[in-house]
Amino acid sequence: MKDRSIKRPSLDELTHGIDQSDRMMLSRAITIVESKLASDQQLATKLLDSVIHKTGKSVRIGITGVPGVGKSTFIESFGTHLTALGKKLAVLSIDPSSSLTKGSILGDKTRMTHLSQNSNAFIRPSPAGTSLGGVAQKTRESILLCEAAGFDVILVETVGVGQSETAVRDMVDFFLLLMIAGGGDELQGIKRGIMEMADALVINKADGNNLKPANQAKKAYENALHLFPPHESGWTVPVKTCSAIKNEGILEIWSTIETYMSTSTESGYLTRQREAQNVKWMHELIRARLETNFFGDPAMKDKITQITKKVAAGELGVRHAVNSLFS
Amino acid sequence: MKDRSIKRPSLDELTHGIDQSDRMMLSRAITIVESKLASDQQLATKLLDSVIHKTGKSVRIGITGVPGVGKSTFIESFGTHLTALGKKLAVLSIDPSSSLTKGSILGDKTRMTHLSQNSNAFIRPSPAGTSLGGVAQKTRESILLCEAAGFDVILVETVGVGQSETAVRDMVDFFLLLMIAGGGDELQGIKRGIMEMADALVINKADGNNLKPANQAKKAYENALHLFPPHESGWTVPVKTCSAIKNEGILEIWSTIETYMSTSTESGYLTRQREAQNVKWMHELIRARLETNFFGDPAMKDKITQITKKVAAGELGVRHAVNSLFS
Repeated sequence: MKDRSIKRPSLDELTHGIDQSDRMMLSRAITIVESKLASDQQLATKLLDSVIHKTGKSVRIGITGVPGVGKSTFIESFGTHLTALGKKLAVLSIDPSSSLTKGSILGDKTRMTHLSQNSNAFIRPSPAGTSLGGVAQKTRESILLCEAAGFDVILVETVGVGQSETAVRDMVDFFLLLMIAGGGDELQGIKRGIMEMADALVINKADGNNLKPANQAKKAYENALHLFPPHESGWTVPVKTCSAIKNEGILEIWSTIETYMSTSTESGYLTRQREAQNVKWMHELIRARLETNFFGDPAMKDKITQITKKVAAGELGVRHAVNSLFS
Repeated sequence: MKDRSIKRPSLDELTHGIDQSDRMMLSRAITIVESKLASDQQLATKLLDSVIHKTGKSVRIGITGVPGVGKSTFIESFGTHLTALGKKLAVLSIDPSSSLTKGSILGDKTRMTHLSQNSNAFIRPSPAGTSLGGVAQKTRESILLCEAAGFDVILVETVGVGQSETAVRDMVDFFLLLMIAGGGDELQGIKRGIMEMADALVINKADGNNLKPANQAKKAYENALHLFPPHESGWTVPVKTCSAIKNEGILEIWSTIETYMSTSTESGYLTRQREAQNVKWMHELIRARLETNFFGDPAMKDKITQITKKVAAGELGVRHAVNSLFS
């Protein structure tokens, strides 16, 4: 049965359900936000307006790391610790590529077996949708819905190899880069620029024979980060080690995040960052709308393709090219 | 006498002059490219079309570093070495802020006294214009004009503290970050993310008492860069020391750049990078045009300002806000 054939709850039912932390209703609300149906989009706009005054109270954490660093195990362990502290945790993933294969839904349930059965945790896989912009938009809105439903911590997970890290960095308060020790090899998959986005580096799998290399890596990264330009907020980016599988060092990471949140709340940096993120998000949406209108015009498509080829090859001046597109 | 009252050369005169490497004519061509007059803009478009087949043959180098690292002295020394090798060098600066005070014209002549009198060097200060986008566009076009006029090396200089580094990174083949030893202090002014853009780090002022700290800094940065994700082109980012004032280590930097150019030409990376830069530039221009049309609409301005405030404060949903702007 296709999703679109299911009768949608009313705005009141959704708002009330979210207010009551009804996970089923939260799930359905996110589905509506993700939907491409015009009627759903209208409902989503109203729903977001009706819950917006209840948003903004969570700690928004982004986490990235290439496959193999133990991200799922880390989230399992981190999430289990947080719920044990009485926190309600939502895990959202943003991964435009995986949604193409529709593989992430099964994946998320199987790779976080404990957390997916925890009544204080809510796991939602990456929304379907081919464009990063669309996926990012929906994840931003899902954050707000989860906050309105009373989740204290929102974890937004990304894969660390694509373009999605900047998008996630722009929707969270704290961005965590998960790594393993491996003499630089662990960075093969990470895109340049991601390291400088991080608010903390965490070296996972610091156990057994790997403990010594992990500590050496910690020291090396500490030295390297010392050479980085300072963080705009004044925050010194820490390097931590942990063993997610042995549940070691996990609470210390949470306490680091808490320290960050309290100092950046006091300094006003957190408010400024969130305001800037909201405005940037709005501008991105405006830009996307303008570009969709422009590039999506069927009369323009062929013309743009031809002109782009000539511009790429340096055969046509960019000024001339753009003028001809607007003439 | 205002510039706009001067009679412009004809398209033929400009094209011929540039073809003859006539510096005066090159200068006037750049002025036309920078001009906001509609008649100049039309002339500029034609001029750029008429020279485009002669562009693309230079080595395009970006250089950045905060005030105090000795950027002018470095460019003087580097440029003097290059011209001694028989190269023709153009130095363009991109610095939207300085153009506001109109201070850069005098500045460039006085701070590069030798180079400004060198017949094989051409120094052009940052164009007037308040927006980075506008300045970047004009600098890109000036690069093309200089190439058509037979310059072998184009050096695009930026200040390293603003937003202009990404713009420069997107118009050059090789991006050089100039630094000094100082235990991290030298990075106070550098924006995060710039270090990962660099194709080479150069530690200047490696002389006298500063030689030892400079070599220590070199080693520290080498270790740090080793922990960075690898460069897309396969290039290993080197750390070099030099003393611009004593003319030491300068030729080695040029030879590093030559190595980079030949390997990335062979691998095809250079062509791919330039094609991608052209297309990105075109998209930026299209986007700028779309946004100017949208945000510049007088009927929209107040509405946008009010909505932006509400969005920043988290009082209005972004989806609702954008819908209302497009309704």
